[in-house]
Amino acid sequence: MANSHNWITPYEKRINSALGSLLPDDDSILSKAIRYSVLNGGKRLRPLLVYLSSELGNSSPEAQDSVSCAVELIHCYSLIHDDLPSMDDDSLRRGMPTCHKEFGEAVAILAGDAIQPMAYYSLTNSKEIEDKHKVSLVSLLAEACGQNGMVEGQILDISENKSLSIEDLDYMHSKKTGSLIKTCLEMGGLISYLPEQEINLLSEYGEKVGLAFQIRDDIIDLQSPTEISGKTQGADILQKKITYPNLIGMERAKKRTIELCEEAQETVKKLSGDSTKLIKLSDFISNRNY
Amino acid sequence: MANSHNWITPYEKRINSALGSLLPDDDSILSKAIRYSVLNGGKRLRPLLVYLSSELGNSSPEAQDSVSCAVELIHCYSLIHDDLPSMDDDSLRRGMPTCHKEFGEAVAILAGDAIQPMAYYSLTNSKEIEDKHKVSLVSLLAEACGQNGMVEGQILDISENKSLSIEDLDYMHSKKTGSLIKTCLEMGGLISYLPEQEINLLSEYGEKVGLAFQIRDDIIDLQSPTEISGKTQGADILQKKITYPNLIGMERAKKRTIELCEEAQETVKKLSGDSTKLIKLSDFISNRNY
Repeated sequence: MANSHNWITPYEKRINSALGSLLPDDDSILSKAIRYSVLNGGKRLRPLLVYLSSELGNSSPEAQDSVSCAVELIHCYSLIHDDLPSMDDDSLRRGMPTCHKEFGEAVAILAGDAIQPMAYYSLTNSKEIEDKHKVSLVSLLAEACGQNGMVEGQILDISENKSLSIEDLDYMHSKKTGSLIKTCLEMGGLISYLPEQEINLLSEYGEKVGLAFQIRDDIIDLQSPTEISGKTQGADILQKKITYPNLIGMERAKKRTIELCEEAQETVKKLSGDSTKLIKLSDFISNRNY
Repeated sequence: MANSHNWITPYEKRINSALGSLLPDDDSILSKAIRYSVLNGGKRLRPLLVYLSSELGNSSPEAQDSVSCAVELIHCYSLIHDDLPSMDDDSLRRGMPTCHKEFGEAVAILAGDAIQPMAYYSLTNSKEIEDKHKVSLVSLLAEACGQNGMVEGQILDISENKSLSIEDLDYMHSKKTGSLIKTCLEMGGLISYLPEQEINLLSEYGEKVGLAFQIRDDIIDLQSPTEISGKTQGADILQKKITYPNLIGMERAKKRTIELCEEAQETVKKLSGDSTKLIKLSDFISNRNY
């Protein structure tokens, strides 16, 4: 991530290493497509949220890695499917050809389909999480990425609707990216035995930074050149998507990102643990260019 | 199922009712596509295997339904994705237009993506299964339908390979349909507290009937008219798939189905419980026309 956010680098290395060990590494086209799509230097925001929230309580590094891998795997599978020709039809992801461009459409669909159960397997396979927590984690993750979560958001995103209000856009994003982001924080709180009240605060923080992250994504799409963002600049316009800048204007969109991050910071200041890194992360989210 | 197998009907009604209650029932296109694809009168072989194996020990009807729904949901999601244009490009499924023909490709991909987590949710949400079993069930299911299970089989199935041996074909089917079928029996044994040795027998039965089921499927593709099978007759030939009848001849294919079912029957006769229904089921599998 950005230079002023060097504190993030060790977490990135840690999740990349954990994912590298977890993923299959044989010569099959499926394994190649999976490694290609997962180990491609993403921002790793979701694992970072798991690490930061779980560090507030008591949890083992192994448990943290298991949950971090699970959420990143779900995110990666969703990106592979979102990029498909019948969805966003995107050819560039993280600066590289998208999975279906590199391996063909059938392999891309199946790579996504294989990554999804890997996430649940990662949760149940942890040696350091107790059974009752594993059950809650599977349940939380399944809800976040199902019919009333991520997939609902994606359906709304690809549906043609030229008269979206800002509330509609907020709702779509709260499902498409918000559900999983919020769940990362809840899962981190759960495995480190935080009290319910603290988990609720983390969840609220997740809702705010999740939305801020998405608005910033729309801004980046317009302002950030492909060589910095790793995505096709202006892809949203090409796909005629309704974004925050074209709905409320660039300045108001930027202002809203900052406000949401300030609210998120106020929320985590109420935590009994040290919220410094969660605060720094929200700063990064409101200022990032990729 | 067939008339001489009326004993199956109550199980079919039971799983259809359990699925009907579990699935979302709102006006969204996603819910419609999900209900359309799941509640379309499939054979329900996988739930039946869960019911029959779990009835050998002690498990509650609610636990049996939760597991049965989970395995059938996984099966249904895989059918939706297998039928997609970039895979088998099939337009008919269970006598009706396939999901992507009815709702479009994007919705079909997303319906499959939403059904998959629903299966895990069904397992964790059961009130009658203890946590340690829930963890094992999620783990077993995730393995069966992942990279080394169902998805590997599907990749092999769509890969062009004109010189498949019978061992290659057996291997492909042991992954594509065998993994989930075997797992249904293991899951049923697990929730009803059967000893490991008995679960192993069930698993072996699953391997045999799974393969027999697949060979019979190839025979049906050639011999059974669309109005009986509910599928496009000769679809395998159109897709230039290598099948048992064209690899070893129709008579040997039929003979092998019967032999596998006889072996399956010998296996379950070793169970301490009553294996009558499992034996009747293998009879049905080797003789069915749809």
